[in-house]
Amino acid sequence: MFSDKGRCKVSSCEIRFRVRYDEVDRQDAVHNSRYAMYFEMGRTELLRQNGYDYKTLEDKGIKLVVARLEVKFLAPAGYDDELVLTTRVGKVNRAKLEHVYELRRVADNRLIAQGLTVLAHVRADGKLTEIPKFLFPAE
Amino acid sequence: MFSDKGRCKVSSCEIRFRVRYDEVDRQDAVHNSRYAMYFEMGRTELLRQNGYDYKTLEDKGIKLVVARLEVKFLAPAGYDDELVLTTRVGKVNRAKLEHVYELRRVADNRLIAQGLTVLAHVRADGKLTEIPKFLFPAE
Amino acid sequence: MFSDKGRCKVSSCEIRFRVRYDEVDRQDAVHNSRYAMYFEMGRTELLRQNGYDYKTLEDKGIKLVVARLEVKFLAPAGYDDELVLTTRVGKVNRAKLEHVYELRRVADNRLIAQGLTVLAHVRADGKLTEIPKFLFPAE
Amino acid sequence: MFSDKGRCKVSSCEIRFRVRYDEVDRQDAVHNSRYAMYFEMGRTELLRQNGYDYKTLEDKGIKLVVARLEVKFLAPAGYDDELVLTTRVGKVNRAKLEHVYELRRVADNRLIAQGLTVLAHVRADGKLTEIPKFLFPAE
Repeated sequence: MFSDKGRCKVSSCEIRFRVRYDEVDRQDAVHNSRYAMYFEMGRTELLRQNGYDYKTLEDKGIKLVVARLEVKFLAPAGYDDELVLTTRVGKVNRAKLEHVYELRRVADNRLIAQGLTVLAHVRADGKLTEIPKFLFPAE
Repeated sequence: MFSDKGRCKVSSCEIRFRVRYDEVDRQDAVHNSRYAMYFEMGRTELLRQNGYDYKTLEDKGIKLVVARLEVKFLAPAGYDDELVLTTRVGKVNRAKLEHVYELRRVADNRLIAQGLTVLAHVRADGKLTEIPKFLFPAE
Repeated sequence: MFSDKGRCKVSSCEIRFRVRYDEVDRQDAVHNSRYAMYFEMGRTELLRQNGYDYKTLEDKGIKLVVARLEVKFLAPAGYDDELVLTTRVGKVNRAKLEHVYELRRVADNRLIAQGLTVLAHVRADGKLTEIPKFLFPAE
Repeated sequence: MFSDKGRCKVSSCEIRFRVRYDEVDRQDAVHNSRYAMYFEMGRTELLRQNGYDYKTLEDKGIKLVVARLEVKFLAPAGYDDELVLTTRVGKVNRAKLEHVYELRRVADNRLIAQGLTVLAHVRADGKLTEIPKFLFPAE
């Protein structure tokens, strides 16, 4: 279905965004649950830069699910802070597609968080299946 | 499909819940976007008390969408406050299904917010269609 | 405190953003609670274009709260849709600061939603106080 | 300040809750970012069963932050599923307060997710400080 496109040539990307008001908690810091959402934005953009958009993939039945999430919170980020998230492809094999993340504040380059996600590919019936070859990094 | 069940005999219900940490903003008050979610919990429970669960309805193709939302915010609610939401059916006709809401803090019975939603019924193709008769109040 | 800056000369602004994965519900449409957050992003940007940033205002004790919210949902927006939100200042007087919103999809210019918010100004003790003059539109 | 109360005698607790509509994504599964919020609800309840409420602690300056989060997602949970979360205290020392989590669906006892969080104690100036003794498990 996606054989007309090659493997993923772009192995990392950056996105910039501002912390929204509703993402911050009563400690005036980005709530720990929001980082998973930032990471998702990062890997969606990385996919886009490789010529794929995740919406189309999912609509055609390529359903990727997060199987594992790890976050180290190193410094708080505040409301309206401009952040830059670097997303890099990690290990990729038939069973999993790893991404690693580094989140920094633009103003002072402070490292806010480091993260890791492992994606798995599931079929419509929920069973695990192989990561499609077009999602592998180009050699 | 749902003809074996009658119209809705229960016209109002109460739910109680505690404000979660991530629902509160840096002013230490429930963020204004969260009330829509509370209202949704209220009308889901009202439906359940009438013998229907919204998940099954939606899975069978009865897709209700929020066409209108109004909220008056009267007093802030804080983290860990126990709240009670009263949901009442309002006007119901072929085009719309109204609910009205009253949110109070349990500790002091303070009125936190009043709300209104108007639901419409859309077909799979997104076109509006009639509100099913089983969602009408019993006479 | 903010007397060195004038009243607000910019009366409307546009922001563009993509719908995030976690903002969409199982109907594959932006959840009705998320619009309040988009509106907040719009009026924050409008304030910024007038030379104020809301974070600083709030940190200095100018606490604005949403007293009223109204949304008309006209068409669903989907995951990854690019949206454009127009925020305009409405009525402003000592008691309230109104904004009106229009949300469109960039791809087809479809009107997704219209909204209204009324902000009030509260003191540290929670009592209502006058909307500061620097938030009034320039004449 | 909290010396009138002893150490934590209750080392694990369960909470039950239903998945809310807005917590589910377009795959009809609880979004991966929401689990962090469930874990927070679990450890708040565990604290409450030990005689402390986190709101009061935080308001008195005992600010706990999440320093590390790990989640293994084992099976999807759907809208309106009733879930049961078991929260257990893990390692506790001067530097960190660990909790481990197990999330199951009530209907079929299916294991949905396993998690781990590490909390640190920060002073008002953001510097790390020791975990208070009253948060240690009773011997």
